[in-house]
Amino acid sequence: MTTVVARSEHDLLGYRDIPADAYWGVHTLRATENFPITGTPISAYPHLIDALAAVKEAAALANEELGLLEPRKAAAIVEACREIRDGKLHDQFVVDVIQGGAGTSTNMNANEVVANRALELLGHAKGEYRHLHPNEDVNLGQSTNDVYPTAVKIATVFAVRGLLKSMAVLQDSFARKAVEFRDVLKMGRTQLQDAVPMTLGQEFSAYAVMIDEDRNRLDEAVQLIHEINLGATAIGTGLNAPAGYAEAARRHLSAITGLPLVTAANLVEATQDCGAFVQMSGVLKRIAVKLSKSCNDLRLLSSGPRAGLGEINLPPVQAGSSIMPGKVNPVIPEVVNQVAFEVIGNDVAITMAAEAGQLQLNAFEPIILHSLSESITHLGAACRTLAERCVDGITANTEKLRASVENSIGLVTALNPHIGYEAATDIAKEALATGRGVAELVLEKGLLPAETLADLLRPEVVAGSGQALA
Amino acid sequence: MTTVVARSEHDLLGYRDIPADAYWGVHTLRATENFPITGTPISAYPHLIDALAAVKEAAALANEELGLLEPRKAAAIVEACREIRDGKLHDQFVVDVIQGGAGTSTNMNANEVVANRALELLGHAKGEYRHLHPNEDVNLGQSTNDVYPTAVKIATVFAVRGLLKSMAVLQDSFARKAVEFRDVLKMGRTQLQDAVPMTLGQEFSAYAVMIDEDRNRLDEAVQLIHEINLGATAIGTGLNAPAGYAEAARRHLSAITGLPLVTAANLVEATQDCGAFVQMSGVLKRIAVKLSKSCNDLRLLSSGPRAGLGEINLPPVQAGSSIMPGKVNPVIPEVVNQVAFEVIGNDVAITMAAEAGQLQLNAFEPIILHSLSESITHLGAACRTLAERCVDGITANTEKLRASVENSIGLVTALNPHIGYEAATDIAKEALATGRGVAELVLEKGLLPAETLADLLRPEVVAGSGQALA
Amino acid sequence: MTTVVARSEHDLLGYRDIPADAYWGVHTLRATENFPITGTPISAYPHLIDALAAVKEAAALANEELGLLEPRKAAAIVEACREIRDGKLHDQFVVDVIQGGAGTSTNMNANEVVANRALELLGHAKGEYRHLHPNEDVNLGQSTNDVYPTAVKIATVFAVRGLLKSMAVLQDSFARKAVEFRDVLKMGRTQLQDAVPMTLGQEFSAYAVMIDEDRNRLDEAVQLIHEINLGATAIGTGLNAPAGYAEAARRHLSAITGLPLVTAANLVEATQDCGAFVQMSGVLKRIAVKLSKSCNDLRLLSSGPRAGLGEINLPPVQAGSSIMPGKVNPVIPEVVNQVAFEVIGNDVAITMAAEAGQLQLNAFEPIILHSLSESITHLGAACRTLAERCVDGITANTEKLRASVENSIGLVTALNPHIGYEAATDIAKEALATGRGVAELVLEKGLLPAETLADLLRPEVVAGSGQALA
Amino acid sequence: MTTVVARSEHDLLGYRDIPADAYWGVHTLRATENFPITGTPISAYPHLIDALAAVKEAAALANEELGLLEPRKAAAIVEACREIRDGKLHDQFVVDVIQGGAGTSTNMNANEVVANRALELLGHAKGEYRHLHPNEDVNLGQSTNDVYPTAVKIATVFAVRGLLKSMAVLQDSFARKAVEFRDVLKMGRTQLQDAVPMTLGQEFSAYAVMIDEDRNRLDEAVQLIHEINLGATAIGTGLNAPAGYAEAARRHLSAITGLPLVTAANLVEATQDCGAFVQMSGVLKRIAVKLSKSCNDLRLLSSGPRAGLGEINLPPVQAGSSIMPGKVNPVIPEVVNQVAFEVIGNDVAITMAAEAGQLQLNAFEPIILHSLSESITHLGAACRTLAERCVDGITANTEKLRASVENSIGLVTALNPHIGYEAATDIAKEALATGRGVAELVLEKGLLPAETLADLLRPEVVAGSGQALA
Repeated sequence: MTTVVARSEHDLLGYRDIPADAYWGVHTLRATENFPITGTPISAYPHLIDALAAVKEAAALANEELGLLEPRKAAAIVEACREIRDGKLHDQFVVDVIQGGAGTSTNMNANEVVANRALELLGHAKGEYRHLHPNEDVNLGQSTNDVYPTAVKIATVFAVRGLLKSMAVLQDSFARKAVEFRDVLKMGRTQLQDAVPMTLGQEFSAYAVMIDEDRNRLDEAVQLIHEINLGATAIGTGLNAPAGYAEAARRHLSAITGLPLVTAANLVEATQDCGAFVQMSGVLKRIAVKLSKSCNDLRLLSSGPRAGLGEINLPPVQAGSSIMPGKVNPVIPEVVNQVAFEVIGNDVAITMAAEAGQLQLNAFEPIILHSLSESITHLGAACRTLAERCVDGITANTEKLRASVENSIGLVTALNPHIGYEAATDIAKEALATGRGVAELVLEKGLLPAETLADLLRPEVVAGSGQALA
Repeated sequence: MTTVVARSEHDLLGYRDIPADAYWGVHTLRATENFPITGTPISAYPHLIDALAAVKEAAALANEELGLLEPRKAAAIVEACREIRDGKLHDQFVVDVIQGGAGTSTNMNANEVVANRALELLGHAKGEYRHLHPNEDVNLGQSTNDVYPTAVKIATVFAVRGLLKSMAVLQDSFARKAVEFRDVLKMGRTQLQDAVPMTLGQEFSAYAVMIDEDRNRLDEAVQLIHEINLGATAIGTGLNAPAGYAEAARRHLSAITGLPLVTAANLVEATQDCGAFVQMSGVLKRIAVKLSKSCNDLRLLSSGPRAGLGEINLPPVQAGSSIMPGKVNPVIPEVVNQVAFEVIGNDVAITMAAEAGQLQLNAFEPIILHSLSESITHLGAACRTLAERCVDGITANTEKLRASVENSIGLVTALNPHIGYEAATDIAKEALATGRGVAELVLEKGLLPAETLADLLRPEVVAGSGQALA
Repeated sequence: MTTVVARSEHDLLGYRDIPADAYWGVHTLRATENFPITGTPISAYPHLIDALAAVKEAAALANEELGLLEPRKAAAIVEACREIRDGKLHDQFVVDVIQGGAGTSTNMNANEVVANRALELLGHAKGEYRHLHPNEDVNLGQSTNDVYPTAVKIATVFAVRGLLKSMAVLQDSFARKAVEFRDVLKMGRTQLQDAVPMTLGQEFSAYAVMIDEDRNRLDEAVQLIHEINLGATAIGTGLNAPAGYAEAARRHLSAITGLPLVTAANLVEATQDCGAFVQMSGVLKRIAVKLSKSCNDLRLLSSGPRAGLGEINLPPVQAGSSIMPGKVNPVIPEVVNQVAFEVIGNDVAITMAAEAGQLQLNAFEPIILHSLSESITHLGAACRTLAERCVDGITANTEKLRASVENSIGLVTALNPHIGYEAATDIAKEALATGRGVAELVLEKGLLPAETLADLLRPEVVAGSGQALA
Repeated sequence: MTTVVARSEHDLLGYRDIPADAYWGVHTLRATENFPITGTPISAYPHLIDALAAVKEAAALANEELGLLEPRKAAAIVEACREIRDGKLHDQFVVDVIQGGAGTSTNMNANEVVANRALELLGHAKGEYRHLHPNEDVNLGQSTNDVYPTAVKIATVFAVRGLLKSMAVLQDSFARKAVEFRDVLKMGRTQLQDAVPMTLGQEFSAYAVMIDEDRNRLDEAVQLIHEINLGATAIGTGLNAPAGYAEAARRHLSAITGLPLVTAANLVEATQDCGAFVQMSGVLKRIAVKLSKSCNDLRLLSSGPRAGLGEINLPPVQAGSSIMPGKVNPVIPEVVNQVAFEVIGNDVAITMAAEAGQLQLNAFEPIILHSLSESITHLGAACRTLAERCVDGITANTEKLRASVENSIGLVTALNPHIGYEAATDIAKEALATGRGVAELVLEKGLLPAETLADLLRPEVVAGSGQALA
């Protein structure tokens, strides 16, 4: 005979059985029943769980400092939070990531897990809340409405740090190629039409510079995320949080996380506002746009092998076709494009959620957390994958590229100042009519000495001045 | 001493060790390494796995029928596919849902799992592809470019069926409330300003009708998804697929799935086109918009309990606040709003992916599958949750609602034809100036007999004609 | 000395001077002051003005028929409306297209213009509303909340008819090219990599078929727009509209417009719902997606002239560069791409506006009208321009295209069944290593007789079966 | 008999007649025929026309300085540009704002107008380009690809300045109300449910702070727009622009515009990149989100007059209904909401246009200009209108608001620390059961002296600490 061992807990709706080994309690149970939406628990976002534990720890220390929480209780809470931040008990964070209630269920899940672990540390059984209570002790002086946004911000800061590192990896990868290809002459194109010569190094340098600029923008946006509303309690008036609490909690939270957090000057505004998340998502969208553009280019430049541009070769990373032998496809840029589309879509979801906030609170931060986390994590994976499985291995078809310059009509634009507009136009016409190359015709007609032409096509001349490598 | 047992497989990039118990092979391995993006394997979409197995089974039967595949091999493939459709081996579908390669890795994952299971059924070891080959046998006459879109479509049809059922549940729930509240008088509002009287039943009837119309639109959109391109092979020319193959495969696939599938008239167009997915996503977005609007209304009508409209009560499903005792929040409508925002964001991602297709193929169908699946599944969960955990338990504050009508200035609009425009305007002015009720003033001044007024406020009179209940 | 001649009108806010020659009145004046947003008056949408006049005319006829409006007044209103529908007085519709008030200002503008013109027809001066009143006579039995949505729908139907015609022009243009290019062999591409042969005619046929399908979808979507809520008055209860009015007004409006209009079964739902507009915009977005994809292809296929794919030539329509002589750019596809981006953006605006509706009305239909009208009109202009200034003049570089097939590695996929997999793989390897053509090697090695190879490359063989031309 | 006087001009496509009085020429004529899309000429964006003239003037001065342009010609060009910047000849900028060609037609329109006016100033007839040529003189050393983005950036900077001013007006308006309402007690709400007390001043202060933060973000974003690529010529290599040109042109352009412009460090990147526009649009979207949220609140708080929240009154600015006498609607916030939806939609259009750039150029900047200009201009109009026609005239229903606090269950949260949790819970229960007010019950039971209760409800106590007014 099997015995289901359970403890009983109650909330305003009544009593419920909780599995004996669960660190979560009745509020968490209700939430799992109320929000059977995605099947993805909040434990899928470890930065968030760590951030929640950091907030609970900071609050306990502040409460102890202000004489509101017994040192014994505070110590147990702090110890429980540290275990969570060490990666333990994450599987106890089971509420669905998309949830109603403005994050209340996430906060209650944290309160219950911390309380029950702290109870154990104090020698009590899980559920014996008379010794240490999820709400009255763990959540003391707090409200979901300041805990949740604060935790989401800290989680976002840590996630963005990872993204910044991945972007740096990709930037370095592009920059190395910019150096490697600095002497590779090619035709530049505008509107997909042959324009004027450039170097392949310049092309890759531009990709590196784009990422560098985006990193700067991301760095600016993440600064705004350091402003928290801890101490605001329900709506920003700080009701029931004693004098000094907000500052003490912020100080402890900064110390725990190592982040230069600041408390918002106007807590009412800070509690209802999602502007910093909208800004962050806007910057992520910008990154996605640029990354997608660069990947579009890589796919285009490597098109072929024969009926395409065929200027560069992406390293093969898997067989390209289940039916066409030897076909190799640009699968890595393709997956990056798709992440970009996802990020751009997420930005719309975040925008709508932010706009839908009403009066003193935005109840839709859970979807903002969800979308933002996905955008950041997937972009990071995309950048790193693109660097390591694609850009690092790109090679150039140098001869073909140079021939395309010598053969191009666009070359006359460059020769214009040297052979005169009239001769240039005549050469262009003859090249078009005969299909012959401009360089060849210029030499044949003795319009320029071979060495002068060679000089004009030296990569450093073609590249022009002021083209800083990334 | 533990021994890692592995088999060796090779592809165009060379040899790799595959875990001995894996049904997937080298192509799948490469893909898992190439696409470390979301961490979500395609097994998270069981409809897709089932659909892939159905396509492989149909192709094997068609190939056998055309004499291209030995009956022994065909039988083994068919048996393997049926096991998968019975829910087995789903954990072997491990490639990331967001992947480059237009679904090639998903198709190869399926080819490898089917082949290795079929090999076992034939008495061979996994990996002994000389007896039955993932590409040459399981994928015979197919290409990722017809297999993948076909499987995505079948998966979508089955997912949409689930959504349609959930929507019907919600429609019924609203319709029952429309009947329950048919005699509850209330003020209608336009632009959030008091307008003219109506019944609460009419309000809920409108929600029911909205869903009914959306179900019709969804039903139309899913019809378009029944058009497949199986037999198109790489680009729609049907290269290497013998005469009769497309039709035989379609016939078998229809029989296996029970769906009235049709082969597209122009396979080149069908192979590059994502229009049916864009249309489907557009309809899902429409559903999201309406659902979000209805939930906004429910949250507004239940605002309070004292400083809000307080017209209806949502059933409490969990404690509302970690700090404010007794507070109950509209958490179910809130989670539905968030799903709606997600669906609207997904529509943008799908739009961008569809627009980015180039020439004979859209390489970005994996993100379309991912976004579409999430939208459909989450909307279904949202509808069912809204019905069962919220709408079913809604109650009305009947007395307060009736008083708001009698007290409203807007009532004069209704009395206009009965007491004359001039008297109506005077009453309105006096009501505004004194704060008194229009009904009260009309009776006091003897402008209407009490029974006439009562008659004018009978729910069936207020509701007007032609207001079909859903 | 100049004398400003003006008449005085009043509303609930007081008296204002109106220019003597203005057909609009005080409500319109207030609106122009309240909404100085875009500077675009509603007269920029002539279909809307005509539709408003049609609604006012239908209402007058219905009111006359029901004995609610003197025949003399009705006749004057009808006459004024007909003048407007003949294109007169459009310049009197001056309120900003983006306006608050759910279209009230547009409706009042129409009431005032019709009333003042009707007054003139009756021999009175403008502003002598005691003889015929904008609200009490022209707006009799109506509300902005049924007039405005009804007018927007009728305007949309007529605008969509124009778009359908322009799409047909473009479809025909693509279809003619499909016939013209039916024998032009080329390499098909998937993921921008050379895949297998096809004909250029098939490529253009796919574009034609896409538009054909989109026309079908648009036709379905516009059917939904024929459902109107005239007779709903303020919130759908039909308050103050007499029995028979809704049906009589619908009948007259159908006769006037020639459209098979139907009255919504549930007017409360119909009055608050914007689903049909969301659906319409979703279809417009689908059209935009496909059109943009086709234009991306055209730009790619015509890239060059030397360092691009150079498969087709777009007709030059203007000089391409202010600096590079002789450069011709794909400006027509580029402008179509931009219209597509606009339409996709408009869809998001429409989505948000529809979602923001509250309770018995959506106050944001003016932006829906604005965005929808722009999307329809610009798409129509884009389709026609693309057909007449680009597609009609496209020529093919037939020789280059054929050479790309004979030279392609992808050709081995086609030869596979004829020379065997092993020989095919050897040929592919040799072609890759030497840069030589597959066709050339196959003939050189005697693997196939020249006539067999020629036969395999006949366009009708390459095209495969079942490729219906549009 | 009337004689149409025309001059003849030619381009690479042949000769065309140009109206004798037109300052534009053959390239402009072609463009008007090629792009019949919106009907809106670029003259609708005066900042753009001024910016184009500024760029042309700066280039002429730089060319003169470098000895490339005769002083006589330079002087004439400079004079013509100044006239344009003084508002003259704007009607000659006739090409459609949505155009293909990456802005070439806009640049050519400018070259032609400047050239023809300069010709007149030099005593020649329009069209006598042998004396001064649109391309060879006015466009000397330039390319559309550096002129157009530079002009768009300068136009954007000036447009944003206007927006910043309008935002400041709105911020001030909200801030004044924050002071005016600082002593008005009210219930704060979270998730539309009564939460805890606050002041109405705090509510308006939050709106002011939001705008203040958004202004800071906008100011940051506009800094990025000061980086230009003038001197890049076609693709960023500076081909055909002599040494020193870029710097001289930048210097002159800074002087002419008064803007601290900087030349991008990497001109290849700068020429293809639209990141600064995406960033700007993202910030505009953020502003739109906040503004829309604030307007949603204003509409909600002013709902009623009787069956709504009725906390504040918006000033009536027009009659609200064509059918319901005395109804006043929140038309100004409604129009602002709609502008917000438009801006959010425009952001998607801009995002897609930016993503679609290929290789060395983004051909889709015209739609970016169009969408960005509309967003900036409409947001500015919306802010100013909201301030002047709505917020400035808002009044509070002070008594009703205070009563809602005293009557609210939420008050117990505030009394908790003073009467104990147990007593607080009992009071809450009794209040809920009887419908009586919490304050009333507390006094009746002698749980708190009247003066203590009054003290706890003093606005400065309720507001809490640290609530800086904007």
